[in-house]
Amino acid sequence: MFITFEGIDASGKSTQATLLAKELEEREFDVLLTKEPGGTELGKTVRNLVLHGEKISPRTEALLFLADKAEHVDSLILPALKEGKIVISDRYLDSSIAYQAAGRHFVDFDYESLGNWAIDNVQPDVTFFIDIDPSVSFARMLGKHDKLENEGVGFQRIARYAYLEIAKKHRNRFIIIDANGKSVDELHAEISEITLKKLGDRK
Amino acid sequence: MFITFEGIDASGKSTQATLLAKELEEREFDVLLTKEPGGTELGKTVRNLVLHGEKISPRTEALLFLADKAEHVDSLILPALKEGKIVISDRYLDSSIAYQAAGRHFVDFDYESLGNWAIDNVQPDVTFFIDIDPSVSFARMLGKHDKLENEGVGFQRIARYAYLEIAKKHRNRFIIIDANGKSVDELHAEISEITLKKLGDRK
Repeated sequence: MFITFEGIDASGKSTQATLLAKELEEREFDVLLTKEPGGTELGKTVRNLVLHGEKISPRTEALLFLADKAEHVDSLILPALKEGKIVISDRYLDSSIAYQAAGRHFVDFDYESLGNWAIDNVQPDVTFFIDIDPSVSFARMLGKHDKLENEGVGFQRIARYAYLEIAKKHRNRFIIIDANGKSVDELHAEISEITLKKLGDRK
Repeated sequence: MFITFEGIDASGKSTQATLLAKELEEREFDVLLTKEPGGTELGKTVRNLVLHGEKISPRTEALLFLADKAEHVDSLILPALKEGKIVISDRYLDSSIAYQAAGRHFVDFDYESLGNWAIDNVQPDVTFFIDIDPSVSFARMLGKHDKLENEGVGFQRIARYAYLEIAKKHRNRFIIIDANGKSVDELHAEISEITLKKLGDRK
């Protein structure tokens, strides 16, 4: 089973991905916890180029993120799925579509088709979208300085809207988790229950 | 005017690109000589990742080369063209199409459309294809060890064939220079004469 976590920056998705991985491991599932960008060695270089390097053009950034994804699928995700592991990824293609296609307005190109080619059409079984008010997440981010986060709350609002559009299109795998006003433990309990039920249904 | 040099590895195109740039500068043209991959800072990193890094998947490699191209166009080529410079690039999009699309058989994806998007549809005015027998160029390469060059003479033969197909499709800008049995100076004289005529026609 392939599970992804999506959400705007500082939505709490990394925390939830980690907690879910830990819980499943405690229940003796074989789990690979990974993330994008940066889940592979190449991905770390790409992440540094995009988030902390010189200013680059939007098309360059989009293509670098897709290169990271291609490598992530081929070298980590697919081999783990073939070994029967549960793969949990903190961000995946939906992030690119939400942030790049929506945020940067590549209206002239079919970014989703390109993305699906990059990931070799390896789609998640379940995607948890941790939905939080962008003004709340933005307040949490203050003091961090990577380039995407510096785009401001407006960019996060557009990304959230883009995520909700993607969720509508992929109802079969998207689960929207309303994170507003909930504690980390409450969210984990909710996500864990859904995941365990899905794993049970698969047996 | 935007001039590109294309050809299989060790065909002599870098030498010819440099000689042409030098000659045009001596004639007091304002020239930018650049190359792919690696014409920008980001490009150097990408070049290292692809040619000297860990083994990466073919889709990753293709996307990294395209990211290099996007950055090259946006940060170097377009600004120079806008300033009225003659831009000479040692390799450009045709290289990617010849080596990636043909050599690695991405039959499932419209690589050329993607490439045109990456270069923001900035097409060369003239492309010199330095055409040499792959067994001759391969003999020149022995002792060099980057990954593409290690693919062997068969790969170079496929790339040459792919170039000739591209040349057929873009007759308006492709000039095939038969380099077999010709000296560096003879080739330079031929290329220089064509270029100066084209520059004269433009005045």
